Amino acid sequence: MEATRACTKLQLLLMSEEEDPGEVQVEIQDQPSAQAQASDDYFHSYSDLSVHELMLRDQPRLTAYSDCIEKNAHLFQSKVVLDVGCGTGILSLFAARAGARKVYAVEASEMHKKAETLIKENGYSDTIEIIHDVVENVKLPEKVDVIISEWMGFYLLHESMLASVIDARERLLKEGGIVIPSTGKIYICPVAMEHFRKQHVDYWKAYHGFDFSSIGDEIMTAKMSTPFVEQISSSELLSRPQEFTNIDFNKVETAELVSLTGDFSFEVERTAQMAGFAFWFDCDFTLESSFPIILDTSPSSEPTHWKQTTVFLGVFADVQKGEQVEVKVTMQQDDMNPRHYSISIQS
Amino acid sequence: MEATRACTKLQLLLMSEEEDPGEVQVEIQDQPSAQAQASDDYFHSYSDLSVHELMLRDQPRLTAYSDCIEKNAHLFQSKVVLDVGCGTGILSLFAARAGARKVYAVEASEMHKKAETLIKENGYSDTIEIIHDVVENVKLPEKVDVIISEWMGFYLLHESMLASVIDARERLLKEGGIVIPSTGKIYICPVAMEHFRKQHVDYWKAYHGFDFSSIGDEIMTAKMSTPFVEQISSSELLSRPQEFTNIDFNKVETAELVSLTGDFSFEVERTAQMAGFAFWFDCDFTLESSFPIILDTSPSSEPTHWKQTTVFLGVFADVQKGEQVEVKVTMQQDDMNPRHYSISIQS
Repeated sequence: MEATRACTKLQLLLMSEEEDPGEVQVEIQDQPSAQAQASDDYFHSYSDLSVHELMLRDQPRLTAYSDCIEKNAHLFQSKVVLDVGCGTGILSLFAARAGARKVYAVEASEMHKKAETLIKENGYSDTIEIIHDVVENVKLPEKVDVIISEWMGFYLLHESMLASVIDARERLLKEGGIVIPSTGKIYICPVAMEHFRKQHVDYWKAYHGFDFSSIGDEIMTAKMSTPFVEQISSSELLSRPQEFTNIDFNKVETAELVSLTGDFSFEVERTAQMAGFAFWFDCDFTLESSFPIILDTSPSSEPTHWKQTTVFLGVFADVQKGEQVEVKVTMQQDDMNPRHYSISIQS
Repeated sequence: MEATRACTKLQLLLMSEEEDPGEVQVEIQDQPSAQAQASDDYFHSYSDLSVHELMLRDQPRLTAYSDCIEKNAHLFQSKVVLDVGCGTGILSLFAARAGARKVYAVEASEMHKKAETLIKENGYSDTIEIIHDVVENVKLPEKVDVIISEWMGFYLLHESMLASVIDARERLLKEGGIVIPSTGKIYICPVAMEHFRKQHVDYWKAYHGFDFSSIGDEIMTAKMSTPFVEQISSSELLSRPQEFTNIDFNKVETAELVSLTGDFSFEVERTAQMAGFAFWFDCDFTLESSFPIILDTSPSSEPTHWKQTTVFLGVFADVQKGEQVEVKVTMQQDDMNPRHYSISIQS
């Protein structure tokens, strides 16, 4: 969902730039920017398709689902499957090809028409039924054995589409049925972002023989006030990543997603300037396959369209090798718009 | 001007897809998209800065100006210079450093504040005077020796800022004064876009074992209906490029820019499928330097933010080695919005 997700804006609230960086408190809140709203208003057909194109070209994403379904085909054969937010219908096609008796493919956007066409063109119209609605409105003539969905947002929870999967699980899944993927973990790690700093700060200090550092300052301030959703190098990590949360999608309740919090102590592995904290996730697709099937969006894995989400402190804080960086991290759902989360990092 | 320029939309009017490709008539008209209009309405400060950042990081662009000014410093020493659309003021700074007695730096956007700051921070406030206005409103206490401006758009003429330079030249330049750059040529060449075709057509034909070619068709149709402003490889060129026009910025009149037209016959150098025609430009900055200084945006030169503009036919037309492809090409200024051009290619 790159094209729309990337158009969000985070508000960065620093207590004071004068404070000791160790005392910095950062609160970041997702808000749709004017551009994103304009983009919602003007629902350009290709923009929409381009989002799906991006996702369809995301090989680690597709491989996790196709491996999971092929290596666990016995869980699909003659079974009833629900695909929550089917998009172009690719996951439904995987399920149908694996032998599902029936696939209900739910899609609220106009993309349901494209899915209908692709399913017909690939000869699966008898097995896959497209339902053009939000899943919360869907009633089915039977309960399903499997729920499959690609609902994951940036740092897993952005967009909160997991709530729709939970709703479907509660109402439409057989007792003993399974949700795919089954679990997801969010990771957090302090980062240096040295390349970023060189490119956006150092570059302007001697620009064609002039001092353009005030351009660099303005660019940095702007970039640091937005969610930095970019692939970062694992060399930027300043510590061992820690697990922020581990969610079992077969059990989690929506109430548990309102506020997630944790206290962390990171041991700094090299003396550097700390720019902020990176977040990413992995999801487990192993089920009963003989080898683990993990979709991993970490900096050291093959890049995905989720990249990593970096939350900046607003300053580059000097940290020493061996130092402990202690923070309290909260992801809080917005009261007004539950699709948005605030991430706050407090020392 | 990437960020705003890239948000334009071309209308592609094919006479009929059933016709012989040799008979295809393409008319492309620039129109601001809803997104671009929204972006105009909501003049986000960083969006604006990011456009300047892109231009400031364009090394071939900056090098042409700085080489020109350094190698022709005698044309600047103790002279009066006008910088039309100074942006962050970098060209004015080059001119001041080369010894200009006075630089009038005209900037209509809010970027004039940034320019003011940078000029002050670099100690040139005594030499460079920022004028916050459109150049058409500017009156000066003296005529200038040199007009310097970076006004060039995609395929040179997009955005038509050249008209402002002509206005300044007519009213504010001394007789015998010079305009930098001095000349510009637009080139045209038929292109195969094989990489593009493989990526956007062939990719979907066997997508994870399914036929997703209708996705590819829709993506191609959408992409082919917009100006494709991307860096293309010189290996995509199907013929020797030809000069579409050669404009002397010291002499050209605005009336000459209303409609530019030419008949071309390209000898095809290899049997291929022809996707359309690429346009690019170069500008001459040599003046009296002992070696040529050319800003060249061709596919075989170092990439710039102008890239190349490809106009698609809407079909991939089979062409044979040795075949002559004959087309009439017109760039026509829009009556309603002179900043927009229609490009039509007719066989």
